[in-house]
Amino acid sequence: MTESKTSVTFDEIRKILTHLPDANSEAESAARARQQHLTKPPGSLGRLEDLAIWMAAWQGRAEPELTRPRVAVFAANHGVAFNHKVSAYPAEVTAQMVQNFLNHGAAVNQISDSVDAQLRVYEMALEHPTNAFPPAPPWRRRLRPSHGHGMMAVDEGVHLLALGEMGIGNTTSASALCCALFGGKVTDWVGAGTGIDQEGRRRKIQVIEAGLASNADDLADPLSCLRRLGGYELAAIVGAILAARMARIPVLLDGFVCTAAAATLHRLSPHSLDHCLVAHRSVEPGHSRLIEILGKTPLFDFSMRLGEASGAALAIPILRAAVACHNGMATFEQAGVSGPADESRETA
Amino acid sequence: MTESKTSVTFDEIRKILTHLPDANSEAESAARARQQHLTKPPGSLGRLEDLAIWMAAWQGRAEPELTRPRVAVFAANHGVAFNHKVSAYPAEVTAQMVQNFLNHGAAVNQISDSVDAQLRVYEMALEHPTNAFPPAPPWRRRLRPSHGHGMMAVDEGVHLLALGEMGIGNTTSASALCCALFGGKVTDWVGAGTGIDQEGRRRKIQVIEAGLASNADDLADPLSCLRRLGGYELAAIVGAILAARMARIPVLLDGFVCTAAAATLHRLSPHSLDHCLVAHRSVEPGHSRLIEILGKTPLFDFSMRLGEASGAALAIPILRAAVACHNGMATFEQAGVSGPADESRETA
Repeated sequence: MTESKTSVTFDEIRKILTHLPDANSEAESAARARQQHLTKPPGSLGRLEDLAIWMAAWQGRAEPELTRPRVAVFAANHGVAFNHKVSAYPAEVTAQMVQNFLNHGAAVNQISDSVDAQLRVYEMALEHPTNAFPPAPPWRRRLRPSHGHGMMAVDEGVHLLALGEMGIGNTTSASALCCALFGGKVTDWVGAGTGIDQEGRRRKIQVIEAGLASNADDLADPLSCLRRLGGYELAAIVGAILAARMARIPVLLDGFVCTAAAATLHRLSPHSLDHCLVAHRSVEPGHSRLIEILGKTPLFDFSMRLGEASGAALAIPILRAAVACHNGMATFEQAGVSGPADESRETA
Repeated sequence: MTESKTSVTFDEIRKILTHLPDANSEAESAARARQQHLTKPPGSLGRLEDLAIWMAAWQGRAEPELTRPRVAVFAANHGVAFNHKVSAYPAEVTAQMVQNFLNHGAAVNQISDSVDAQLRVYEMALEHPTNAFPPAPPWRRRLRPSHGHGMMAVDEGVHLLALGEMGIGNTTSASALCCALFGGKVTDWVGAGTGIDQEGRRRKIQVIEAGLASNADDLADPLSCLRRLGGYELAAIVGAILAARMARIPVLLDGFVCTAAAATLHRLSPHSLDHCLVAHRSVEPGHSRLIEILGKTPLFDFSMRLGEASGAALAIPILRAAVACHNGMATFEQAGVSGPADESRETA
């Protein structure tokens, strides 16, 4: 890190990826064993049991903690939204929404409060939009501090990190990135974003095709794809995911844009997202494609398509309940509850 | 109500069903209109928007309240579990689990706490198990106070009611009830309950077939089906759903047994469950059949099969977040955020 404290080079990212910590198998086994003794038929809490064990495995504690969840939202501008009408909303809305976050007026403010999570909003050089494609902008150096900013969203004391973004035009960016990372037709990766009409969607597809063509020489490497087609907020999410992994903090991914950023890491190293859950299935068609590629099962599908980490934040109480059951329930022995009839125990 | 304050006759239930209050269409329209002005693309919060509008419609307030949710669990014994091995657990576990609830050791205790909801447990004459079928027990008079007990679980000050049950043997009861109410093969309505094996499931099916046969003369009317095949806790749930409707309190239904009780009302009057949501899809195969019959869409599917209102309680924070967004978000005008590009407004 020669440029500044917040700068992270591609080489550094590649090096981190070769040293990713694994889940703690001892904590995982202990948590799995504990679930068998709690006063419920084994397996009857379904996915809540898996979630508690997953939290235990990544935190490295047989009884995971979840009193300090954090929601981190990264906001950035995209030149493509200034130069082409690819969004239903004008590009100025990014800055206006950041102000709305600061004034506690947005959806993620209300959700974070209602789920008792800390919200942090990171405004990323809104005055310097990336992604003017075409032509490709000269922003090689700029993404580095973005990864670093994402990493700064991670503190050791955080028990769970819910990630999301805000940026008018960033589904255009995410669709282009996914197409570059995983192939397929551009149309398969493009949805309505904030609600663009059919003509707008056609425009969006053309812009992405042009962007991919003009960057064609630099799309072999996933990190180059991110640099060419991503945006500050996507780069920050990549940084946050890596920093969370190093700090053994489980991560909740939000919708399409957030998951697209994460997918860059998956493309580099298939196990790099093992500490991440996809919180919900977004309406964006590209999200379902990504979820399948990543092999994840979202917790719920509420037909949301807002971003802002809204879906990720909404999943926090599910994990909190899973952890509460895991840590707080009595065992059969403690409660004097009989086990299955064939192997009935003495009660206390 | 001639017998006692808590007794409710079938005639009284039928009378209530002809006087059910509808959703408040004025509050619903106002809530729907409000959603259009909040700082998000219209519709982008998906089902959260529908949930907030539904809460508004049933509470009769354009801005619904959700500071006082209640979880109500009704526990009862089933003679069938004492007389036949239809459950993986001995029938004594019902009473032991009630003690576990009182000692704060069960799953629903942890979930209720973690979602900041009040939990009330109603122990219903555990010393007098119903459902010894076959032969049919003489418990006509006993179910009446059960409806009444269920109604007592509803106070005017409650903003949302999550309903559930505990009773070893009660999936046998619920399967029999569903078969009597909606027809179909017994096998289609029978699952593993708390985790009985294949041989146990065959026994369970035989017991249900015998129970249906021995009560065949009294299964034309849905309330008679409930009386003959249900149990105190199922009757209480029916009472609680009706009392909640009269008090305009939205209801979250839990899994198979809870939804089976509710289905009795659906069979009597198709709109009687309009103020109810099915919180989650249970593993019990009969639950999916019921959900389809009721025309409901569960909020999530976590492969749970515990009962105890565990799934219903888990949905409370989803509704709380929906209401928080609805009431707390800034409008475009308030926040000075531009609307869609084609009809951009002046910002404040």
